[in-house]
Amino acid sequence: MSRFIEKLTPVEEALQLLKLHVEPVKEWGDVPVWEANGHVLARDIHAPHDWPPQAKAAYDGYAVRSVDTPGRLAVVGKAEIGSREVPRIGPGEAAYVTTGSFLPDGADTVVPEEYVDEEDGYIIVKDKFEPGMYIDAAGSLVRKGQLLARKGTVLTIEDMAGLAEVAITEVPVYRSLRVAIISMGNELIRPGTPKDTALKVLEGSVIATTGSVIEQFLVDYTPWVEVIDTALLPDSKDTVAWYVERVLPLVDIVLLTGGTGPSRIDMFYQLQESLGGELLFRGLYVIGGKPTSAYIVDGKPIIGLSGYPISALHATIRLVYPLLIYMGNVKRPSPPLPIVRATITDSVKPKRPRPIKVRVEIRNGKYYASPLGKEYQKSSANIGFVLGDGLALTSDRDLEPGDEVDVFLYRAPRGYRHLGLPLK
Amino acid sequence: MSRFIEKLTPVEEALQLLKLHVEPVKEWGDVPVWEANGHVLARDIHAPHDWPPQAKAAYDGYAVRSVDTPGRLAVVGKAEIGSREVPRIGPGEAAYVTTGSFLPDGADTVVPEEYVDEEDGYIIVKDKFEPGMYIDAAGSLVRKGQLLARKGTVLTIEDMAGLAEVAITEVPVYRSLRVAIISMGNELIRPGTPKDTALKVLEGSVIATTGSVIEQFLVDYTPWVEVIDTALLPDSKDTVAWYVERVLPLVDIVLLTGGTGPSRIDMFYQLQESLGGELLFRGLYVIGGKPTSAYIVDGKPIIGLSGYPISALHATIRLVYPLLIYMGNVKRPSPPLPIVRATITDSVKPKRPRPIKVRVEIRNGKYYASPLGKEYQKSSANIGFVLGDGLALTSDRDLEPGDEVDVFLYRAPRGYRHLGLPLK
Repeated sequence: MSRFIEKLTPVEEALQLLKLHVEPVKEWGDVPVWEANGHVLARDIHAPHDWPPQAKAAYDGYAVRSVDTPGRLAVVGKAEIGSREVPRIGPGEAAYVTTGSFLPDGADTVVPEEYVDEEDGYIIVKDKFEPGMYIDAAGSLVRKGQLLARKGTVLTIEDMAGLAEVAITEVPVYRSLRVAIISMGNELIRPGTPKDTALKVLEGSVIATTGSVIEQFLVDYTPWVEVIDTALLPDSKDTVAWYVERVLPLVDIVLLTGGTGPSRIDMFYQLQESLGGELLFRGLYVIGGKPTSAYIVDGKPIIGLSGYPISALHATIRLVYPLLIYMGNVKRPSPPLPIVRATITDSVKPKRPRPIKVRVEIRNGKYYASPLGKEYQKSSANIGFVLGDGLALTSDRDLEPGDEVDVFLYRAPRGYRHLGLPLK
Repeated sequence: MSRFIEKLTPVEEALQLLKLHVEPVKEWGDVPVWEANGHVLARDIHAPHDWPPQAKAAYDGYAVRSVDTPGRLAVVGKAEIGSREVPRIGPGEAAYVTTGSFLPDGADTVVPEEYVDEEDGYIIVKDKFEPGMYIDAAGSLVRKGQLLARKGTVLTIEDMAGLAEVAITEVPVYRSLRVAIISMGNELIRPGTPKDTALKVLEGSVIATTGSVIEQFLVDYTPWVEVIDTALLPDSKDTVAWYVERVLPLVDIVLLTGGTGPSRIDMFYQLQESLGGELLFRGLYVIGGKPTSAYIVDGKPIIGLSGYPISALHATIRLVYPLLIYMGNVKRPSPPLPIVRATITDSVKPKRPRPIKVRVEIRNGKYYASPLGKEYQKSSANIGFVLGDGLALTSDRDLEPGDEVDVFLYRAPRGYRHLGLPLK
């Protein structure tokens, strides 16, 4: 294999190549629904029973017979929430209920307590109440056998609340994908005390941040993925090969950052010679994408990413994210990625698909993205992250002011109004 | 105070009342930038020095004197990344550099290695290279004193990478806000084994999920907030008062879920009598908002939320979130909330601002929100969370098909395309 790159592979083609060579995770098992947040449903969920299993009060008040309204009724008991034992009421009788308690036998409606006058063991209902008012009838929310959630859904805390409510307490989910993120580079350091570390950086050392940026993206946006290892290794082909061999059995994917460019000391292509496996592509058709590469060892993808946070993050959003969707069997991801359509305010000639550091403003509910100056667009200018609010993710087409572009937002835009109200 | 509610307070008014009675957090300190993710900047950050402090190579290749190009040059040394000691080159000489290494003395440009032929200690440069090409000049990225980030910014992992790069290793941040979430209700249970728990729910018990939904929202969207306590307590005024007294010194805010409605066994208004403090409002002008209440004890807000996840989440999005923004001194929150503008497909008569459970679809880049059926819109119908994808957050105005509405998305919409590519 040549040291230099002959052809840059478009993202879509790179993704198809990867999908041809890796298998989505197959193993699954039942887990308690209260531990399922972020996991991927492995089977459709059908309701195992009607819900509610018998009629329930949908308001705090008095369960009565609708034929007795309006009228003066004797309070003969009380339905406790959390218990299926309920009082029985007869003609002229009422029982106190709270929202969610099972409906007393004989009752067919509930009168909210705001609508009654209470007097010494009796209530006075002034209005007519129809049967079924303020109650949830048996099976009214869910019918046995009803499809509730589809395979491939990433479960959320909201789903947990919904399923737990109807007594679905176990759910079939795929096991998490396991990822190792290996950061390579002789210049990289782990931070020590702030002052010592600042001195080292001023002398030319580089704090290993690229791996952290990728890890945080995965933590935030791919909860079905577990980052089980975040190693820091020198630019030594042998050390990295040694390490990858040891971590590979434990993971589904290895992400390598740094050491993957075309230069003399880069090693991705040497590494493949050590580890064997099949090269899928080397160099992605995006700006900053030359270091992005992939090969397959033992059916598992080893993906080389740039050592620059911006380029590694870009490749993660474009390529690794959809790969993790595929390998995780995800059809409905959660949480949604914070990608918005924005109007670009300056012309941009990206040449290839490109991450452009932008300030983002929201005016009249529309997003506007203003590219930072040229000096901040370099891959090495991470400070552009601090000055900006998001990354415009262009295609290779030139953009004129007024054109729309997708923007990955890492903070709320300037001028953000929360549900119509300013934040201040 | 009356057991029943006389007036519902609009969200904006409730928020103003709270802001009048609570103080934003004042305490702050310097923390290492690699521990600052999610924290709020307490001061503007100005660059303490130029960056880079001296010129750096911006590409892997050879540092040369531009006047020597084109030409055949002797390779006399190598600049190591991570070291400020660099070789000196004279006329007709070159030194190997890698991206980020300091520029050798005497050089004023870098020739990428792809553009040279190498032969036995010499390189041949065929093209003319102008001064400054492929280098980052001293101070070219950041000037000493330059404003980099403003007070009130929630720091992200991207900011960490940017600040660490330019040797800013300590940042002044406010301490986190501390929150206790107390779930009240005799009917509530903590889950045990899935099977036992399902039986209990079928008998009428309710798994305590409301507190978890609120906690997860805070974990996901207010990283400057720490949930330090999630208690479960019975419907006993004395127990809750006892507990609140003990937790109040430790926290900035107490969120109480459940037990706050107007009914006979509800206790929020009794609690205030026990604890003292000043009532700010009782009942929010939103559907499901009657239980939403606030009073102030020792300058700290105690906010009562509904026992229903949907109503508690709704009040959290509308009211608690902006309050946490205010109390945390946040001006630029991160991550952005997943709220999108969507076109509603059915008419809705919300009466008051309301959370409507919706299915969300994206077609041609536009969001469409379809309300679930009436039975799933009840506060008690959590299963609507599972069948839907988001919550439309209406005002009190009627909506006709084609009108736009804000939607809080808890999963990616149906038909989501990732940067133009389908997910499949």
